[in-house]
Amino acid sequence: MARVVYANSRLRVHRDEVVRPDGQIGSYDWVDVPDQVRVAAFLGTDLVLIDQHHYLVGRTLQLPGGNVEQHEDAHTAAQRELWQETGCHGGSWASHGELVPLPGLSPSKVHLWSASDLTPGNAEPEPSEADLRVVRVSLADAHVAVLDGRVGCAASAALILALPRALA
Amino acid sequence: MARVVYANSRLRVHRDEVVRPDGQIGSYDWVDVPDQVRVAAFLGTDLVLIDQHHYLVGRTLQLPGGNVEQHEDAHTAAQRELWQETGCHGGSWASHGELVPLPGLSPSKVHLWSASDLTPGNAEPEPSEADLRVVRVSLADAHVAVLDGRVGCAASAALILALPRALA
Repeated sequence: MARVVYANSRLRVHRDEVVRPDGQIGSYDWVDVPDQVRVAAFLGTDLVLIDQHHYLVGRTLQLPGGNVEQHEDAHTAAQRELWQETGCHGGSWASHGELVPLPGLSPSKVHLWSASDLTPGNAEPEPSEADLRVVRVSLADAHVAVLDGRVGCAASAALILALPRALA
Repeated sequence: MARVVYANSRLRVHRDEVVRPDGQIGSYDWVDVPDQVRVAAFLGTDLVLIDQHHYLVGRTLQLPGGNVEQHEDAHTAAQRELWQETGCHGGSWASHGELVPLPGLSPSKVHLWSASDLTPGNAEPEPSEADLRVVRVSLADAHVAVLDGRVGCAASAALILALPRALA
């Protein structure tokens, strides 16, 4: 048996009746939120990072990205979010798979992409992202930012550290 | 104004009245879940990984870890989870900071640790973790597992890729 025990515009909380690995019957509460995308976008050899204040965690760096909207595939969402947040568009795109931010709480995935040979343009951030600042750093400096703890977003950190090999 | 709009044993959903960066007043729904820990544990030069079926995402590899319990600090939680899941104890421990799995949805952090010179012992997994399997791999093989997509957990993936430099 599975039912939704709470829902609002951002998330749905589910309660499933489950049989645990040890045979016990119990319930499993989990959260349904949209999948996300993060993009390692290169302008020349510079990586594009977003420097932004987050309501819940304060100021942090992360890769451009956001939610996959309904009826949108991950690639389209990645292109749209990169364009909205940075103005960058076009270019060559490659998928780097998916990560799961909270495997015990939600099946929601973060789809990882890289893009190079991009064309710069004008960003069109959403009103809630009015303080968003786009910064360009070398890949080496991006690695340092991850290891220093300045990149708070787990999926962004993993993709940045994967890049030299992922793009090889 | 801030209030809890839903709560169960695993999470609380909050609704805060907020002023957005553009000056608009609105509400922000977010989820409060316990912080977690992930541990890069070395037995000799091998890294310890957990191979487990997850109810929400299927079979995946991740570093040992779990929730920080109430009245427990992150280091104590990391030592407890490593011992429960793998039997490893003792050793030398180092913090590698924190990552945020879903910065827009929850302020919950994953605290990253490494441990070396560990003493092997008998695992005592919780009943819900009865299918948990401990595997030992070289750091190089762990990197390959991340890049192949076999390590689903975002924080585990980031810590594994950070290791050569974090431990240098």
